[in-house]
Amino acid sequence: MHDGRTVPNSKFAAIFDEIANIGATPNEGVTRLAASPEDGVARGAFAKWMKQGGARIAHDAIGNQFACFDWAGDDAPWIFAGSHLDTQPRGGRFDGTLGVLSAGSAALELHEQVSSGRVRPARNLAVVNWTNEEGARYQPSLTGSAVFSGALPLDDALALRDGAGISLKEALAAIGVVGDKGAVPPSPEAYLELHVEQGRKLLEAGRQIGVVEGTWAARKATVRWIGRASHTGPTPMKDRRDALLAAAQGIAGFETVIAANHPLLHRSAARLVVEPNSPNVVVDRATVWFELRGPSVAELDAAGNLALAAFEKVADDTGTQLEIVADALRNPASMDVTLMAIVRRVAQACNFPPETMRSVAGHDAVALQNRGISSALIFIPSVDGIAHHPDELTHPDDVQAGLTVLTAALRHLVEGGFNATRR
Amino acid sequence: MHDGRTVPNSKFAAIFDEIANIGATPNEGVTRLAASPEDGVARGAFAKWMKQGGARIAHDAIGNQFACFDWAGDDAPWIFAGSHLDTQPRGGRFDGTLGVLSAGSAALELHEQVSSGRVRPARNLAVVNWTNEEGARYQPSLTGSAVFSGALPLDDALALRDGAGISLKEALAAIGVVGDKGAVPPSPEAYLELHVEQGRKLLEAGRQIGVVEGTWAARKATVRWIGRASHTGPTPMKDRRDALLAAAQGIAGFETVIAANHPLLHRSAARLVVEPNSPNVVVDRATVWFELRGPSVAELDAAGNLALAAFEKVADDTGTQLEIVADALRNPASMDVTLMAIVRRVAQACNFPPETMRSVAGHDAVALQNRGISSALIFIPSVDGIAHHPDELTHPDDVQAGLTVLTAALRHLVEGGFNATRR
Repeated sequence: MHDGRTVPNSKFAAIFDEIANIGATPNEGVTRLAASPEDGVARGAFAKWMKQGGARIAHDAIGNQFACFDWAGDDAPWIFAGSHLDTQPRGGRFDGTLGVLSAGSAALELHEQVSSGRVRPARNLAVVNWTNEEGARYQPSLTGSAVFSGALPLDDALALRDGAGISLKEALAAIGVVGDKGAVPPSPEAYLELHVEQGRKLLEAGRQIGVVEGTWAARKATVRWIGRASHTGPTPMKDRRDALLAAAQGIAGFETVIAANHPLLHRSAARLVVEPNSPNVVVDRATVWFELRGPSVAELDAAGNLALAAFEKVADDTGTQLEIVADALRNPASMDVTLMAIVRRVAQACNFPPETMRSVAGHDAVALQNRGISSALIFIPSVDGIAHHPDELTHPDDVQAGLTVLTAALRHLVEGGFNATRR
Repeated sequence: MHDGRTVPNSKFAAIFDEIANIGATPNEGVTRLAASPEDGVARGAFAKWMKQGGARIAHDAIGNQFACFDWAGDDAPWIFAGSHLDTQPRGGRFDGTLGVLSAGSAALELHEQVSSGRVRPARNLAVVNWTNEEGARYQPSLTGSAVFSGALPLDDALALRDGAGISLKEALAAIGVVGDKGAVPPSPEAYLELHVEQGRKLLEAGRQIGVVEGTWAARKATVRWIGRASHTGPTPMKDRRDALLAAAQGIAGFETVIAANHPLLHRSAARLVVEPNSPNVVVDRATVWFELRGPSVAELDAAGNLALAAFEKVADDTGTQLEIVADALRNPASMDVTLMAIVRRVAQACNFPPETMRSVAGHDAVALQNRGISSALIFIPSVDGIAHHPDELTHPDDVQAGLTVLTAALRHLVEGGFNATRR
């Protein structure tokens, strides 16, 4: 996999290549689903790397992994930095992995500076790998950070089931992650996350560092049409109750109605479960995962209601029943302005003038910020904006810019440069 | 499962209930996919029942099971009767199972009559359980009868793979079915199959016995739209190449264009495979199994071509690529007129005036007839025409009518009443 995609910092490059290869298949990207055996291998490699650099490893009951540097003593506040090591099916090398390993790399550098007295730590530091950020295997996404921050009850999260009926609790146990292990750090004073942009705004602006001021809102609805299984051959057409035909009309109609009335919203139907999914049986049940994303909750409300009305009409037209399995609104987030200002100053001082921007996607930093944990999200460019695809790429120079700014910002925070009580 | 659905003949009822319960779940019907562990159990129960009645058991390399009664000696021609023991997912109790077990019941009765000298056999008889008739787990359907009759090469059939990538060869081996076992009978002089109608024509005609004169033709196409995986959030809408949107427009458009131009054709899209099928990844590939059925090949050609043109337009509109994975025409079949006349005469003599009718669905009898093996297909009524659904039901009186006619017809054939060389 040494294909020119590695980054200049040789220590970082070694661990990045090692972990990016876990679950990788030629031309098929990386498939390292949350709590899968591949995720277990990646967790082990991350822990080994951090322990060799002087960290102690802990994990909490939802499997969030913490590489802890207890520099400032038991009573000192904590700073966190990280992201996630799980990927989408056939996903990219950088999404999540970059954030965990850049934080790890920064922590190791700071640990040397602490050991040699060049840095005087007033805070402890933990590098965090959050469980199931992607939401590919278990929905909802952002599971680990949502449990840590109190947005999602632990028991609810452990009871989530994947498409094969395996609970997250069972999957974690299968890779040896059961209950709390080690002293898990308390809620931090501040959290930093470095992530690839997954869009093209930085490239278009000619900038290498983005500081995220907030995210779009999202409305995510899971919708089921219930028909009636019958033989695709002899069953008279007028007797059919075809749930797949309903879902197809629903997906096509969703795009049409939203494009016509709310053209600036991002919209998708990306997961569909068909039962029984045999070529000779009219489909009994079809379940579709829809998403709408935009800056305004009011617009998402209006657009979502248009969509639901369209889905009802489809059910009437096809003689199927409509069931709304889930319909959740994710509020837009505003990141911590003091932390944003710190990151912007640090980036400027490192000669990377930052771009202030919004994120469309959710990230662990957003989940924490939404629950009152001061968080900042730093972006570096994605070539062509490609994300969740094997071709996902960030150039080495941009990775280095991110590493430089993240390390400098963490040094500032660890030295006590951000005092949450002052806000 | 003794819920009033059993049939009056107590010996038949016992084996029918035993086998119909293998793979059954309350309210969810029977799931006994071809070459699954449940299929293995059913094969074992069938073989045990037949051996106890005096048959010897053989199977060929594709796993077709033969319960053989070598009454007339090595050089005598054979008569076959049977159907299949595999089911759809959440399928019914009668589809296929009725045909195998009614043939077995008839064979046991004839065996007693042969033993006591009341029947003088001029032919040998085999009760056959054909492999993977349903095509639920492996496509194409009618696999075992197609291999036996020479329509499908054995190696091609063994190499078929299910949705999990397991080959039919591997699946058969896993239930202990490997290569030929025992002396497999040669191609028969005649084949009879009793089956539930899966439609309402017999009920509407007030008849208990149908004699099938032929089947509709079918055109089955597997169509794939290839898009490009990307993040459902930040990816600009104009950059998306959404294969599921294309498939949805394709399925919805297929129904619209066929209903408008060829309203009498039966049509369906009942299987859809979505990759990667994660809520946050724009769909990379969507593959759909379409079917068109009707009496006229010319009309299927015209309708299929309209559909393909609609699929191409969808690909253009969505920026996806269209791939035709498979596009197969199944010709309409005409069943053997001499055998049909025999079955009609026998039915009349048993006081079940027969209805002559067409079948929309394919059956093993059709696969054999299409390759020159004289075959007849006998229908009994299906309540409300329900098929491929847990509620599939045939009333005990109708099952008894089918048993009576099948047994009488087989007696006639075994005594030499049908001489293929005379045709």
